[in-house]
Amino acid sequence: MIEPGDRILLVGEGREFFVKAGQNTLSTDKGQLDLASLVGAAAGDILTTHNGSKFTIRVPRPTDFFTYGKRSGAPMLPKDIGLVIAYTGMNHNDHVLDAGTGSGIAAIYFGGVAKSVRTYEVRPEFSALAQKNIAEAKLKNVEAVAADFLAADGLFDVVHLDMQIQQEHVDHAFNHLKSGGYLACYTPFLEQMAIVVDASYGQFSEVHTHELIEREMTRSKRGTRPSTSICHSGYITIARK
Amino acid sequence: MIEPGDRILLVGEGREFFVKAGQNTLSTDKGQLDLASLVGAAAGDILTTHNGSKFTIRVPRPTDFFTYGKRSGAPMLPKDIGLVIAYTGMNHNDHVLDAGTGSGIAAIYFGGVAKSVRTYEVRPEFSALAQKNIAEAKLKNVEAVAADFLAADGLFDVVHLDMQIQQEHVDHAFNHLKSGGYLACYTPFLEQMAIVVDASYGQFSEVHTHELIEREMTRSKRGTRPSTSICHSGYITIARK
Amino acid sequence: MIEPGDRILLVGEGREFFVKAGQNTLSTDKGQLDLASLVGAAAGDILTTHNGSKFTIRVPRPTDFFTYGKRSGAPMLPKDIGLVIAYTGMNHNDHVLDAGTGSGIAAIYFGGVAKSVRTYEVRPEFSALAQKNIAEAKLKNVEAVAADFLAADGLFDVVHLDMQIQQEHVDHAFNHLKSGGYLACYTPFLEQMAIVVDASYGQFSEVHTHELIEREMTRSKRGTRPSTSICHSGYITIARK
Amino acid sequence: MIEPGDRILLVGEGREFFVKAGQNTLSTDKGQLDLASLVGAAAGDILTTHNGSKFTIRVPRPTDFFTYGKRSGAPMLPKDIGLVIAYTGMNHNDHVLDAGTGSGIAAIYFGGVAKSVRTYEVRPEFSALAQKNIAEAKLKNVEAVAADFLAADGLFDVVHLDMQIQQEHVDHAFNHLKSGGYLACYTPFLEQMAIVVDASYGQFSEVHTHELIEREMTRSKRGTRPSTSICHSGYITIARK
Repeated sequence: MIEPGDRILLVGEGREFFVKAGQNTLSTDKGQLDLASLVGAAAGDILTTHNGSKFTIRVPRPTDFFTYGKRSGAPMLPKDIGLVIAYTGMNHNDHVLDAGTGSGIAAIYFGGVAKSVRTYEVRPEFSALAQKNIAEAKLKNVEAVAADFLAADGLFDVVHLDMQIQQEHVDHAFNHLKSGGYLACYTPFLEQMAIVVDASYGQFSEVHTHELIEREMTRSKRGTRPSTSICHSGYITIARK
Repeated sequence: MIEPGDRILLVGEGREFFVKAGQNTLSTDKGQLDLASLVGAAAGDILTTHNGSKFTIRVPRPTDFFTYGKRSGAPMLPKDIGLVIAYTGMNHNDHVLDAGTGSGIAAIYFGGVAKSVRTYEVRPEFSALAQKNIAEAKLKNVEAVAADFLAADGLFDVVHLDMQIQQEHVDHAFNHLKSGGYLACYTPFLEQMAIVVDASYGQFSEVHTHELIEREMTRSKRGTRPSTSICHSGYITIARK
Repeated sequence: MIEPGDRILLVGEGREFFVKAGQNTLSTDKGQLDLASLVGAAAGDILTTHNGSKFTIRVPRPTDFFTYGKRSGAPMLPKDIGLVIAYTGMNHNDHVLDAGTGSGIAAIYFGGVAKSVRTYEVRPEFSALAQKNIAEAKLKNVEAVAADFLAADGLFDVVHLDMQIQQEHVDHAFNHLKSGGYLACYTPFLEQMAIVVDASYGQFSEVHTHELIEREMTRSKRGTRPSTSICHSGYITIARK
Repeated sequence: MIEPGDRILLVGEGREFFVKAGQNTLSTDKGQLDLASLVGAAAGDILTTHNGSKFTIRVPRPTDFFTYGKRSGAPMLPKDIGLVIAYTGMNHNDHVLDAGTGSGIAAIYFGGVAKSVRTYEVRPEFSALAQKNIAEAKLKNVEAVAADFLAADGLFDVVHLDMQIQQEHVDHAFNHLKSGGYLACYTPFLEQMAIVVDASYGQFSEVHTHELIEREMTRSKRGTRPSTSICHSGYITIARK
């Protein structure tokens, strides 16, 4: 049941609108959408504009927050978030420590998987924006902290870092990981990757750096081929305590 | 607290042993491990052999079941499982329908993420082996069914197929997906990918086929370079209802 | 010694001009270039504009014809042309048959390597444009023929096809190749690649299809990383008679 | 016409033999091959063993010297040699300076393309072996010098380095390149690539580092797919004077 203030995606007529269920009205080129009538509706219901255009009600998923969440910078790509989840085996038993919250997109994905997520971001305005995105994703198990990662304490199953990483951050992660837990570090540049790998060797075991090159296959009447542009984003180093 | 029959990973002395906590003893080249003493122990505790070798007790994570679970064939690679989780936004609210259980490795990963997983496998002996792996992973929310995917009913947030896929399977998935839910199809060959894409167009929206080329970066005294071999596995088509 | 009508590249002041040595003058935002004074000059000499800007005289290489040659469509990329040269072992003893001349860029590269090149193009206006590019590259050993590939006769060391390829074209190539010679087929789409491979099996030996994914490494003060976009172009099938 | 001492490839019965035309006899599991009878024969002729097995006479191409030439280490891969040829626009007008001869494979490819090649190798035993390979490839325009690259003088259109490269080597290349000529440096490791790029900036223009990821497409009754292993070799930096 959709409640007042809930984020809703309205899809139809070749358009998508990311709205809040509430009292107001949204004017579009396809007619007026009565957002008050969303309250009490359910996913899959149809909302009809005053002039007969039909929109399907969609309750947003993490993929929608990646597309429509407010951004403070370039968030990690889903392919890389998926790699972190898979290579750490992140699951519903896990307490996850995250740093470099950014817009909170990775934290939203992780919050849908883990028992709890604590995410650190040193820039208060980024942390505040992330908190807003997290609240809209209705994740009660994700806590955004506006502080330096080195201030984090507690014991975690997975630590994920997407920030400028130095030896002290890798050491801090090690100290706050349970035995058998994983550190995952995202680094766009090779020099940063080298810092992470060098800092991990010795204390961590199973240190591996992965690169994911993703491309889309296109299929048209002319035939099937890979998209001519392919996506690289960064390096992900996984290390186990 | 480790209970009798629990799967445990013992790590130390350059060795790993995937054992069951219980009454017996494991003889190794590093000495005898008393498996009875695992009961009541906790992750991170140390088990010492009769001759003083030390092993750390690890409670297995999904990554360990990928490595040590019994196999009936080549399971999906973690990179591809991660892509499915990320591109469907799979999370703790989701009911997931899976088919082509195989050894159950994907179902184990999904079971750690979703509220429930139902997984279909037409070969009874494969389904039985998967059930064993799932039980060892202590996932009460994953149900393995030894039946054809077309026999599945109910309504799901995500449908994942890793099997020989025809038009009727894509149609069946569409009929059992909630509005806004995702179909994810893994296909090793291009011809199969084409069948999935052609069957999805029209009924599904947002049909995209992804290919992940993964490689590992190696770092030694000689320098940093990509591993000379790189891994391709298959194509993953994601489609949204 | 530069002769009247020769194509010349003038490089300087952050500009490049692809001009013809001759009687006229080129007006640029860096001043007037006296093209008559190019005649008799040599590569590396400096041409000074009336207001003192300096341009270095460059005698164009095949790479410059790729950049500045007139185009009738998208030419093959140098990485793919290089692959054809390397995988056929093209060299100064070879007679090369080329079809799908297009703008003649591949023929220009091949003409700089082989003893002779005959290139077929069924669209006369494309062949005429290619002939112009070839003449400007001063390649006397390259003959552009405005005719269908199936009209080609003679015996060649290498046959290269960049066109819509059917079984009959592969058969025709086989019939006009010397023993030990190579066929190289460029196909952007997978369906076309399959036609080539299926047509080659049986008559040719050593049939291999290659895909080159090229990316550029970028290096700035922020660090070293692959360019975020990567280039795929097509599939190249090499088969040996 | 095949002369005494010429390298010949005999292909047939699922076998390949890389032999020298001459007086002796080669005993194989398919019968005895009379190598004397090769003298005066031509490519494509058939040589029949005493017991009726038939072998086709092939005059080796650069691709065959890559496969059968004697090796002192891992030679550059054809894909990378092709990239150097294409990105420098190497052609029959060019004088090429090469260093890090190794087994001479790259020099053999270049010798089939350029007017002349001079190749430096500091280890005399490697240079001697390369000289043998070059002689067998019947390339009179390739000179192998057993000396340090810094001893090279003259003026060249293309300089190619496949060796441990320092700033002084890049400077030396610059000093011996004609205006408009290209330097091409092959480096397996990222740290070496960085040295080359940093040394090139400033003096050279158009500095670009390329990486070629090659994979083979496989096609069987089960379907079409990329080979599961993909090949990376190194980075190639191209810079223009």
